[in-house]
Amino acid sequence: MTEQLIHPWQERIRAQIAQERGATVTLLQEWVRERSVQGEERSIQEKIAAHLTAMGLEVDMWVMGGEELLNHPYFVSPRDDFAQSPNVVGIWKGTGGGRSMILNGHVDVVPAGDEKQWEASPFSGAVIDGKLYGRGATDMKGGNMAAMLAIETLQALGVRLKGDVIFQSVVEEESGGAGTLSTILRGYRADAAIVPEPTNLKIFPKQQGSMWFRLRVKGRSAHGGTRYEGVSAIEKSMIVVKAIGELEKRRNERITDPLYEKLPIPIPINIGVIEGGKWPSSVADLVTLEGRMGVAPGEEMESAKAEMETALLQLAEQDPWFAEQPVELEWYGARWVPGEVSEEHPLMELLTDAYRTVCGTDPIIEASPWGTDGGLLTKLADTPAIVFGPGVTQVAHYPNEYIELEAIFQCAEILALTLIEWCGLSEEGEQ
Amino acid sequence: MTEQLIHPWQERIRAQIAQERGATVTLLQEWVRERSVQGEERSIQEKIAAHLTAMGLEVDMWVMGGEELLNHPYFVSPRDDFAQSPNVVGIWKGTGGGRSMILNGHVDVVPAGDEKQWEASPFSGAVIDGKLYGRGATDMKGGNMAAMLAIETLQALGVRLKGDVIFQSVVEEESGGAGTLSTILRGYRADAAIVPEPTNLKIFPKQQGSMWFRLRVKGRSAHGGTRYEGVSAIEKSMIVVKAIGELEKRRNERITDPLYEKLPIPIPINIGVIEGGKWPSSVADLVTLEGRMGVAPGEEMESAKAEMETALLQLAEQDPWFAEQPVELEWYGARWVPGEVSEEHPLMELLTDAYRTVCGTDPIIEASPWGTDGGLLTKLADTPAIVFGPGVTQVAHYPNEYIELEAIFQCAEILALTLIEWCGLSEEGEQ
Repeated sequence: MTEQLIHPWQERIRAQIAQERGATVTLLQEWVRERSVQGEERSIQEKIAAHLTAMGLEVDMWVMGGEELLNHPYFVSPRDDFAQSPNVVGIWKGTGGGRSMILNGHVDVVPAGDEKQWEASPFSGAVIDGKLYGRGATDMKGGNMAAMLAIETLQALGVRLKGDVIFQSVVEEESGGAGTLSTILRGYRADAAIVPEPTNLKIFPKQQGSMWFRLRVKGRSAHGGTRYEGVSAIEKSMIVVKAIGELEKRRNERITDPLYEKLPIPIPINIGVIEGGKWPSSVADLVTLEGRMGVAPGEEMESAKAEMETALLQLAEQDPWFAEQPVELEWYGARWVPGEVSEEHPLMELLTDAYRTVCGTDPIIEASPWGTDGGLLTKLADTPAIVFGPGVTQVAHYPNEYIELEAIFQCAEILALTLIEWCGLSEEGEQ
Repeated sequence: MTEQLIHPWQERIRAQIAQERGATVTLLQEWVRERSVQGEERSIQEKIAAHLTAMGLEVDMWVMGGEELLNHPYFVSPRDDFAQSPNVVGIWKGTGGGRSMILNGHVDVVPAGDEKQWEASPFSGAVIDGKLYGRGATDMKGGNMAAMLAIETLQALGVRLKGDVIFQSVVEEESGGAGTLSTILRGYRADAAIVPEPTNLKIFPKQQGSMWFRLRVKGRSAHGGTRYEGVSAIEKSMIVVKAIGELEKRRNERITDPLYEKLPIPIPINIGVIEGGKWPSSVADLVTLEGRMGVAPGEEMESAKAEMETALLQLAEQDPWFAEQPVELEWYGARWVPGEVSEEHPLMELLTDAYRTVCGTDPIIEASPWGTDGGLLTKLADTPAIVFGPGVTQVAHYPNEYIELEAIFQCAEILALTLIEWCGLSEEGEQ
């Protein structure tokens, strides 16, 4: 049996949030209607900055760039001009003496994809049966809203916290975290962070990292009618796909962390794109495979890379073709650093308690099957980051993405309680 | 031991050809410099028509089209407007009473491809060490030149034949034969045909047909980090590729024709193009495979199609996914009708004898590993077609395509002798 916890602020917080439901939904609709795909985030960021200013926060909005960022080993982005993609940070200053907290979320959304697969417009913000629809609703404007609502609720109740609360509205998460990297280079860090990505209110102290790779599998061309005179890169790529599957298996057999118990494949290697050959009646001389390699929370990305390289080199042992024409491996595109916060970290306990207070049950504690900007915060900014937010990943990146509004309000309630406990109530805030 | 045959005309023919070598090479260079890719054949065809007219042939040049052609079951082409792609036929009328012969060749060439892989410009016509280089040199302007030179040689020697020689310079062979189909609909046929495609002077009484297919292999998308929630169309496509390989094996085990003895896979099924998935970290929900299915000389195309359909349906027995999401099969694009002429056909003997006369050895008689317009002539025009020409297919369709000039002259010599024997010498032509 889970003991229902009671917190002296809970009732007031819940009542205050209930009062703001209508306004919150309207604001989230506005955010979702902002088509903040990569390179088009300025408009929503200006609105958020104005909102944070109205809340009385110290607001910092900047366009990232410069050598330090662009040459940083953790910088990945397909672009180097962010003029239309400012970052926004709002600081709710504490009265002093408390622990600080970063609430980090991204406003960039992935493209809508095939609009015909959407029942309504991808940026409609339509609310149907308690769900708000639109690209980015779950990933992760709903989470950002929960974080902002937590702060606003405490403010409305006259709470003052000892520690700073640093609300970060970043860009580029979907491309590997350059926005959060820029906040770190700008000096932002805290005693802990919560990243309200859609965990369905599960608590993820550990997060899988990932990185993208491209494989070039060679063949030798010939006419299809005499295909035996060539070497099919398509047939060879089947051997490569199989070898990658075996590598995935070996890597996952090593994962014994109970947090991964419920995941059939804790750190998958996904081959998502295949392309090769130019002509139906020619033997394909090149197949390109593109994929994503999961990286375990405690693992160095470089060692994961080396393991993949070794697996590809070993192909030569089973097929001499690969000795002659080794598979080319390229690490490209996006990359998310894995993150790991001890389950004994004090924020884990506070967040767990807040969850039990609000939901009356124990939270599910797992390791995330995907990376977030939390990895960068933990690894580079010495800011232990836990991922916890409303919404379900199953709908992220897909047509008809939505978020259950109730989850946002629950999350805000939990975050507000957590902030009180983590940052500490200032005496002037006690009522 | 092969008995060296002697023919009363051989010496004169060889001497005449030797005299024309320089002019022939110059003319072939002109032809190769004509960039006669699909839709741009008018210029070379006008030159060829003018040349045939100058030779005294009855010349017919026309732009194909019309309902009968476009709705014909054997019509395949990605286009229906042939304004810049006329066909040309030149008839060297016989004096009567002899057998007629079609010499059929195409002037359309496949695209040059990546020009950087060419040592010289793809349409240079450069002659180096007895080889003439350029797209179409082997496939098959060199063969056309051999056919034309055979006629010119006989004319220069004052030969008159009894039967008609019908020189056909067609378009669209590379897309499935609409040009030759149009000659047939226009009424051209003969007692036999020779198609001087690059057989390396082997004699092909049988030719493999082929047709293109497209397979759509379904999956179900999911995030790469939780790839087990989806079904990878890339993994499923590996099962499909394997099944196609097994189908190829079964089909080829049935081929017992000794003409196919030297071909490791008499009628291959080549999967030449693979494409699927859109994002490295998503599970691919669709893979498209495009390929070419070889059709045996005596086989009906419809029965080959049915066999492929059955093989794909049987996939459901080994993997229930395919019961839920059957592989979609589409026959599209180009198609070449298989052809078959009996080895006992009188033209086979004449051609063999002519070869032995010119080369002093027995010719290699095989079945072709690819289709030509000869299939249409045999099947639709009641004109038994044998494929025999200079050049090697290994360089056709590839960068640095070339033809050995010597092979053209040998071929012309063999064709000239064959024409004398097939069409018959008219008395007024006897010297």
